[in-house]
This record gives sequence, structure tokens and C-alpha cells, in this order.
Amino acid sequence: MADSVRIGLLGRGTVGAAFADLLAARAAAVEAATGRRPELAGTLTRSEGDFGEILERSDVVVELIGGTDPARAFVIDALRAGRPVVTANKQLLAQHGEELFGIAREAGVQLRFEAAVAGVIPIVRVIQESFGVTEIDKVFGIVNGTTNFILSEMAASGAGYEDAVARAQELGYAEADPSDDVSGADAAAKMAILARLAFHTPVDFDGVSYEGIERVTPDDLAYAKELGLSLKLLGVAERRDGGISVRVFPCFLYGGHPLAPVGGPFNAVMVESEAITEVTMSGPGAGGVQTASAVLGDLVSVLAGETPLPDAETSLPLVADVSSSFYLHLEVADRPGVLAKVARILGENEISVKSFVQRGIGDDARLAMVVHECLESRFAAAVEEIAELDDLRSPPRSIRVIEEEFV
Amino acid sequence: MADSVRIGLLGRGTVGAAFADLLAARAAAVEAATGRRPELAGTLTRSEGDFGEILERSDVVVELIGGTDPARAFVIDALRAGRPVVTANKQLLAQHGEELFGIAREAGVQLRFEAAVAGVIPIVRVIQESFGVTEIDKVFGIVNGTTNFILSEMAASGAGYEDAVARAQELGYAEADPSDDVSGADAAAKMAILARLAFHTPVDFDGVSYEGIERVTPDDLAYAKELGLSLKLLGVAERRDGGISVRVFPCFLYGGHPLAPVGGPFNAVMVESEAITEVTMSGPGAGGVQTASAVLGDLVSVLAGETPLPDAETSLPLVADVSSSFYLHLEVADRPGVLAKVARILGENEISVKSFVQRGIGDDARLAMVVHECLESRFAAAVEEIAELDDLRSPPRSIRVIEEEFV
Repeated sequence: MADSVRIGLLGRGTVGAAFADLLAARAAAVEAATGRRPELAGTLTRSEGDFGEILERSDVVVELIGGTDPARAFVIDALRAGRPVVTANKQLLAQHGEELFGIAREAGVQLRFEAAVAGVIPIVRVIQESFGVTEIDKVFGIVNGTTNFILSEMAASGAGYEDAVARAQELGYAEADPSDDVSGADAAAKMAILARLAFHTPVDFDGVSYEGIERVTPDDLAYAKELGLSLKLLGVAERRDGGISVRVFPCFLYGGHPLAPVGGPFNAVMVESEAITEVTMSGPGAGGVQTASAVLGDLVSVLAGETPLPDAETSLPLVADVSSSFYLHLEVADRPGVLAKVARILGENEISVKSFVQRGIGDDARLAMVVHECLESRFAAAVEEIAELDDLRSPPRSIRVIEEEFV
Repeated sequence: MADSVRIGLLGRGTVGAAFADLLAARAAAVEAATGRRPELAGTLTRSEGDFGEILERSDVVVELIGGTDPARAFVIDALRAGRPVVTANKQLLAQHGEELFGIAREAGVQLRFEAAVAGVIPIVRVIQESFGVTEIDKVFGIVNGTTNFILSEMAASGAGYEDAVARAQELGYAEADPSDDVSGADAAAKMAILARLAFHTPVDFDGVSYEGIERVTPDDLAYAKELGLSLKLLGVAERRDGGISVRVFPCFLYGGHPLAPVGGPFNAVMVESEAITEVTMSGPGAGGVQTASAVLGDLVSVLAGETPLPDAETSLPLVADVSSSFYLHLEVADRPGVLAKVARILGENEISVKSFVQRGIGDDARLAMVVHECLESRFAAAVEEIAELDDLRSPPRSIRVIEEEFV
């Protein structure tokens, strides 16, 4: 009879319950793959179980409580007691990753967290192991399924933002309070983790800038369609000017872009490097069973053998001002000379227009355009100047665009 | 100073040379990740080096010769001598995988082969490690970049097959003798390896059926476009009726399918399972640097720690007759009753038409249609009967279709 391995499970919410079920269902497969039969040593919930007792009885700890408190204390205690830890906790990793990596390294045990980023897409393993010694230039993609569903819904049905959020809540894709998702904060935590792994440098979560999707209007999406664009909430971590930039923002993509067809609650992540060109991975971004499946994959790796902890080779600065292409939407009075004024301001700021749509609506005209890549600070200055024109009917709206048109 | 690890390199063709360069360029990163500094112990080429001497001096052997002879003998000797082996050799794995896995298991050393399938896409690692205990239902995709480039070229330019092949050769995407790629044999070897890993069952390479793209005409692609379809050479390995089916065939996809936008020399692989829903991975299918990068990722894993060898839990039979949807193209005399005859034959074989296009050309008419999923044997019987009609101007042409329309 094979040795057993005792799993201490912290948390029994959606993911915790799915994990317990999956572990039971796949116990024979785990035993075949690792030579050890897994069994639950105990489960800690809000109302039941004692952490100290469960830790004592466990060979490995699986943390599925979420949030930083008390999860952080539990994970630290487990690592210090020499127990490998598997967690799905993105906030914990994004905010306390360095501390936890250090403790795990000192204790000589593994800390795995595939399920913390991009659901079932094994992006953590691929970046850490397959591309562990690859000089990665850029990691970017759709890492929040809730917002991708909302944007897909708005684009497909012409629904307004509030209606699309309500629909996402109905279907279980958004929480009752969706602010962590729609604000971009959730995606920012995930991008901090990916940047940390890709660039082998500590990433200060507070240094990750993010914008959400709360101000996107159906009107934006309608014009975008005319220009052949679709809207995604993108997380981007990249090397820039000797440093790195880690940001989350809504962004249009041309139809041929690998991320353009990624709709609904799906996630997709691209990794770029000279040595590998680019690799794209997509799949469901969340779901109890899917997340539990990622946790189980990590558990099997813990049981099967060692992999290195993320190291910190260098310390790279965050870069603030980068170049981007933009979509710009203006509502102006329909009278002679307005377009000339806008064009003059863009020209003076060295911003050139790539494509342009104009529609007359009553006494007003709407201008939607895509401008070529320019420094963001320069674009912001131009928009500020345009906003002061008397002819404007409402504040200018702008959204970043990935200009590259894939063939 | 860190311990060094000596790499014996077999082969110095495109991939071998790229690997030697990459190893030198990333030596510091390898040392940081594994604690050991890699150095080449020797390189075996056709004209230089002695295998026995190189083996003696090596801690790890990297086999990049290709083909089964003498690669098989070298790999066996290396494993038996206790040396972990990394290889990019798909024919070796597809034809002699079980033998090599057995020898490696007995010797207690690793055998890794990420670069053998789908270039830089880390599909081997993901199936073996992330989804190692997941009950995988289906693995399928585009695993040959040469044919995907040829089909993309034909669709984009309306070029004929021969011209597209010539263009692929010009750009270095096809070899002087492209038969191994265009016949589907290369893709079949890769699918045999993926099926082996996904289903934990030995797969007899001779049992993998394959069709190539040699008979695809620009005409097919033109009609397909009218029906909203694009053509790919697909490899499919799936569970069917208690067994598995492993096949390679040209196949149309609707525009919304995740594989539809995968153009040029790219590869893409999808993994389906109840627990993970589906995960899609895409990237460049070949290229010296990209393949070398996959080899280096394996080398780092060998140096960093152990992962399990593929095990054989069960032995599943290959299933021959499966259901598919088809595209059917007929050139017929343009006279009354022809369509009725075709419809009768389809109806008698319980085959129903999903969509249909007819064009008159002089005295002839061309019919292009997509039929719903049916048993392949039944479809073949219907086509045989249709082929005997006096009204036919040329033999019927048929190609499989993935009917599912992704939203």
C-alpha cells in the first residue's frame, strides 16, 4: 500500500468545496502520478476546525480562504513548520509575495500559486518553468473574466454598463459588489504577480497603476465597431527603457489580434520574448472546479518533486510615461473650423491620426479617431487643450489601442 | 563558485547551433535558476566527435540529431549510463517512446521532449504537469506550421497548392522535399505523443490515421469563404466510445473557432476536460531559436529537480469509425433533377444539410454544402453512391468541418 499524504485544507467556500470533491475524485490518479495517496487531514472553516491542530496533522497545506488576513498568518506558520503550501490567493501573493518567498526559501519548502492568476490557464508554471531562463520582454492579456464578460455583453447587445453588470451578476460572473473587478484592482494584483515572475524583480503592488471599465459607454463600443475594434480590459507588464511598466487599462484591439476573439468570462495571456516570439494561452478565467483543478495541479507538483522558488536577480524600476496608440471620441458643435482646431492641437503635439470617422447628429458632430503611438504625457496634454475648446459639447473620451494589425 | 554541469550536445544543425548559442547567452540565467553553471562538454556532428567520449564527459545529454537512427541508440546508451536526456525528436518519441520511457524509468533518470511537439508552445509540460491528474477528453489543434502556412497562403492569395508550397519553400517554412509535412505524417507523430501523454496509454504510431493537404484546391477555399469557413490541417486525439481516436485531417472551421485565426506558420493546441473546460495555447510552430528555447526550458527542469515519467495506467483501444460534419463539393451537369438525386442519396443515408451554395458555370453547376455530424462510414457510403451518378463532371470532394459555432 502506498504512503498517504495528509492535506490540510483552509477554507471551504466555492473553490474549497470544489477542491475537496476533486481531490476525492482524482485520488487514484494522484497516487499513480506521485506514489502517494492523498487524504484530507482536516478542513478549517469560519465555524469549524482549529488551525494549529490541522497544521499538526498535515503534510501539505492548501490555503483557499482568500484575502490577506488571516491567510497570511496561516501561510507563514505553515511554511515555518516545514509544510509546503499551495494557494489560490492573488492578494496575498501580490501584497506579501516577497515575504512569503523568503520564508519558504529559508524553510526549504515549496509555495505554489498557479490558481492565483488566470484561472485554469497554467501561466504561472509556464513563465516559471518553461520560460524560467528566457528573457521575457512582455506579458499581457485579459486576466479578469468578470470585466471581459461585461465588455463582451455590451458589445454584443448594445447594453449599457449597468445592465451588463446586472447580467454578469445574474449569471454568477460578478459579485454583488463588483468594484474589485470593474475597477481593475483584481487584474492589477494578478499583473503584479506575473511581472514578478517574468522579470525576476520584486514588484511593489502599490506601484501598479490601474483603470477600470466603469466609464465605458455603449456609444464607444458602437463607433469602435465601425473602426474594426473590440474592447478589452488589458493587463500589461513589459520592459521599457531599462525598467518595467505594469498597468491595467481598457484597450481596443483590431479584429486580427490574438486577444480580440477572447470573449465572455475567458482569460488569455500572451508572453513575448525574442527567443520564443510569442505564446498565447487562453481559457476560463474562473469557476470553482477550474480553480480547484489548478490547485490540484500544484499539489501534484509539490508531491512529485522540487521546483525553484521565484528568485530576485535584479531590481528594476517602474516606468511611468510610455507610448501608446489611442482612440479619441469628441462631441462638438457642427460648425466650420472645429475639425481644424482639433487637428492643429494634435499636430502641435506631434500626434498623427491613423483612422477617422465623423457623424453629424442634429447640430452636433461626433468625431471618433485612432491616433498613432505617441508618449502618453503628450497625448494627455493634447486632450487637455482640446477639452478647453468652446466647441466641445461634452468632455473628450479616450481609450488606448493596440495599433498592430495582425495578418 | 557554483558547480558546473556538463552538457553533451548531439547534432549541430539549425536547432543544435541555435541551442549552443542560446546556452552560452543564458548561462548566467541557468546558473541563477538551478545553482549550476552549464558548459558544453562536447558536440557530436556527422564529421566530428566521438559519442562514447562525449557521453563519458557529460552530466546531461541533449539529442538534436533527429530521425530514429542513430538517435535511438545514442539516447538508450545515455539513459542506461544514468544521464538525463533532453530531445526534440518527435519520430523517436512517437515510434520508440515506450521503450525509452521504460529504460529511463529503470535508470531513474529524466527524459524530456517539450521541443518535439508544437515548437515553443509548452504543451508537453502543461499536459504532463499542470493537467497530469486531469481526466482529459480531447487534445486537438494545428501541430504542423508548414501546412498551416500553405493553407493560409492559398486562402489569402487564391494561389494554387503548388505555388503555395513553392512560396513556403522560398521562406524556409517547407523543406525541399515537403512530403513529411504535407502528407500529415509529421503531425501524426506529434499527435501520437500528445495522445500518449493525455490519456496515459501507449499509442501505436502505426494506428494513427492521417490525411494531408495535397488535394486541396483554391476552389475549395473560395467556396469555403462564402460559407464562412477557413481550412486547417487538424490533429485530433480524443476519447471515443471507451477508447481513443487519434487522427490528422484537413478540416474547415467557422470564423469564431479559437483555431480559426491561427494563420501562417503558427501552431495551436486545445485541451478539453470537464474540470478545466478548455485551454488553448498558440505560438510559432518551429524555427531554430524557438525550438532551442524549448530544449533549454527542459534542460533547466532537469537540473532543477525531478518530474515523473509518463506512466501507463491503462491500455485503451483505437476507435475507427467516428462522427464528423463534412463539407461536400460537387461539379454536376446543370439540368433538372440532379439536386434531387443528390438530396435523395443523402437523405437515404440519414445525412442532413446544414448550409448550401450553388453556382451555375456554363453548362455545369457547382454545389458546395456543409452537412451535419454523421458517422464517417455512412458519409463515405453516400459519397460513393453520388460519385456513380451520370451527372457528375468530376469526382466529389469532401473535407471535415468542425460544426460548432463559437459565439
